[in-house]
Amino acid sequence: MKKYAVGVDFGGTGVKLALVNAQGKIVAREHFATAGASGQAAWLDAVAAAIDRMLHARRLKKSALAGVGVGVPGFVDFERGFIHDLTNVPGWTAVKLADMMMKKLGLPAYVDNDANLMAFGEIMFGGGKNLKTAVFLTLGTGVGGGIVLDGQVYRGAYSMAGELGHISIERNGVASPQGRGGLEQYIGNRRIVERAIKLLKTGRTSKVTALCDGDLEKITPKLLAQAAHDGDPFALELFDYVADCLATALASVTYLLQPEAFIIGGGVAASGKILFEPLRKHLEARLSPHFYKRIKVLPAKLGNDAGAVGGAALALKTLE
Amino acid sequence: MKKYAVGVDFGGTGVKLALVNAQGKIVAREHFATAGASGQAAWLDAVAAAIDRMLHARRLKKSALAGVGVGVPGFVDFERGFIHDLTNVPGWTAVKLADMMMKKLGLPAYVDNDANLMAFGEIMFGGGKNLKTAVFLTLGTGVGGGIVLDGQVYRGAYSMAGELGHISIERNGVASPQGRGGLEQYIGNRRIVERAIKLLKTGRTSKVTALCDGDLEKITPKLLAQAAHDGDPFALELFDYVADCLATALASVTYLLQPEAFIIGGGVAASGKILFEPLRKHLEARLSPHFYKRIKVLPAKLGNDAGAVGGAALALKTLE
Repeated sequence: MKKYAVGVDFGGTGVKLALVNAQGKIVAREHFATAGASGQAAWLDAVAAAIDRMLHARRLKKSALAGVGVGVPGFVDFERGFIHDLTNVPGWTAVKLADMMMKKLGLPAYVDNDANLMAFGEIMFGGGKNLKTAVFLTLGTGVGGGIVLDGQVYRGAYSMAGELGHISIERNGVASPQGRGGLEQYIGNRRIVERAIKLLKTGRTSKVTALCDGDLEKITPKLLAQAAHDGDPFALELFDYVADCLATALASVTYLLQPEAFIIGGGVAASGKILFEPLRKHLEARLSPHFYKRIKVLPAKLGNDAGAVGGAALALKTLE
Repeated sequence: MKKYAVGVDFGGTGVKLALVNAQGKIVAREHFATAGASGQAAWLDAVAAAIDRMLHARRLKKSALAGVGVGVPGFVDFERGFIHDLTNVPGWTAVKLADMMMKKLGLPAYVDNDANLMAFGEIMFGGGKNLKTAVFLTLGTGVGGGIVLDGQVYRGAYSMAGELGHISIERNGVASPQGRGGLEQYIGNRRIVERAIKLLKTGRTSKVTALCDGDLEKITPKLLAQAAHDGDPFALELFDYVADCLATALASVTYLLQPEAFIIGGGVAASGKILFEPLRKHLEARLSPHFYKRIKVLPAKLGNDAGAVGGAALALKTLE
C-alpha cells in the first residue's frame, strides 16, 4: 500500500519538500535554494536527492510513495504536466516537468499551480478538512486562491481558473493589467499599507503612528493588526474596510458557486478575529439569509506548509 | 433504447411540455395553464395526460422515454427531487415532486431550478452545443443563470448555485434583499428602462422619444434596441452601459471559473450585436489577454424552449 507521498513547493527563492503520510501529516522535510539548483537538470537532481534523504530518515522505501506533486508559481497545463512559464524563475518556460520527474524518479508526478495546491492541502487536511466543496484564498502581496469542487481541484477549461484576486468589486475601480476593480488592488498587503499611510497623512490620529515611531514607511499589515488588536479605532476601521472588500467578492462567489466554506489564509488572515468578525458581518449583509446561513468562513491551518501538503495530497488522492 | 425524453417547463402562468429526441429536437409539444391545474394531484394528472397525447401523436410507447425532467421557478433540492418553495405558484411548498412523478408516470423523474435547465438545454443542444464547460445567462426582468462544468449541471453544496444576477459589480452599489451592487439591479429590464427615462428627463435628445410618442412610460428594452439598431447615439450608449455592467460580472466569472464560453439569452440578448459587440469590447478591456483569448461569448439559440429541452436533456444524459 502507498501510504506516503512527497509534496514539492517550488518557490522563487526556495524549494520546500515534505514527506506526507496518508493522514496529511508531514513526517520529514527538506529544503534547497532555488538559485542553488539552476537549470532543470540540477533542479531534478536536487529534488531526487532530497526525496532520498527524507525516505532514508524515515526508513522508507520508494515503493511506499504514491507519487510526487509539485506546486509552481505560474501557469501550468495540469493534464499534460506542462509549465507554460514561471513568474519569477528564469529558464522554466515550456517545460514538460511531470514527464521529466516521472523519468528521473520512477514515480507518478503531478504539476499544478501553487495556489491550487495550497487550496487542495487546506481542504483535504487543513482548515477545510472533511469538506468536499470549498474555496481557498490566501491574502498576501497578492490575493491568490483555488477552488475544490466535490473533492477535486477545479481548474477550468484551460487550467487557469481560481484567480480570486482578480474578481472585480468595483466596476469603475482601480485599473490593473487584469482589468478594473480587482480585489487584489484593494486588499493586497501594499494596498492596505498605502491606504493607512494616505489616511494618516490627512491628519487621522492613531496608535499606529507611535507603533511605527512616526515613520509611516515602516507600517506593515502586521503592525496595523497589532494596533487593531489593541483596540485602535483607526486600525479597526481599516480592517473593517478590508473585510468589506473581501466580503463583496466572497458574496459573489457564494451566489455563483455556493461552496460549503471559504478557507482563508495568508498574513492578513493570520490577524484573526479583527478580520474574521467584520468579514462575517459584511458577508451577512451582502447575502440573502438562505445563502448566508449555509456558508462557513474558516481560517486556514497549514500556514506555509499548505502547498507542499497539497502536492502530496494530490498524489495520494489521485491514486485512490 | 431510450431515444426520447420529456421536458417540463413549470412556469407561474403556464406549463410547457416537450417531447425531445436524442439530438435535442422537439418532436411534439403540449401546454396547459398553471391556474387550470391547481393543486398537485390535478397538476400530475394534466402532465400525465399531456405526455400521453405527445406519445400518441408520434406513435411512440412510454418505453421509448428515458424519463422526465421538470424545471421549476424556485429553490429545489435536486438530489432529493424536492421543491422547497416556488416563487409565484402557491401550494407548492415542501413537495417531493420527483417521487410523486415517478409513481404517477412510472418513469425516472428529475426536478431542477428552471435556470439550471435552461443552461443545460442551451449547452447540450443550443448555443453552447459541443461545449463541456460553459456559463449561461438569461437577461429579462431578472438576470438568471446556470453553470455546466464538464457536461454536468453544477449546483453547489446545497443546490442553490448559479445565481449570476446577484454577482456584485459595485461594492457600494444598489442595495437589494440579496446584497449590494447585484448585476440584476443594473441590467434587469426595468432597470434599463428606468435609466433611459431618467437620462431622457435630464434633457437628452434621442430617437427613443419619437418611438414612444413622447410617452416615456411606453419605453421597453425592445424599443430601446430598435433605436440602437437605427444608430441612435443615446440608445447605443445605453446598451454600451448594459454591456459594461455585464462584462464586469463576466470578467469575474472568467477569472474564477474559466469556462469555454458564456451563452447569453433572454430579451435583451435577442437584440444581437448592439449588445454583443460592446460586451466583447468591455470584456477584452477587463481581462488579461491570456483569459480573453480563451473565452467565447455566444448567443443562446433555443429561446423559450431552453427550459423544456434542458429538462429532457437531463433525463437523456443522466441515463447515458
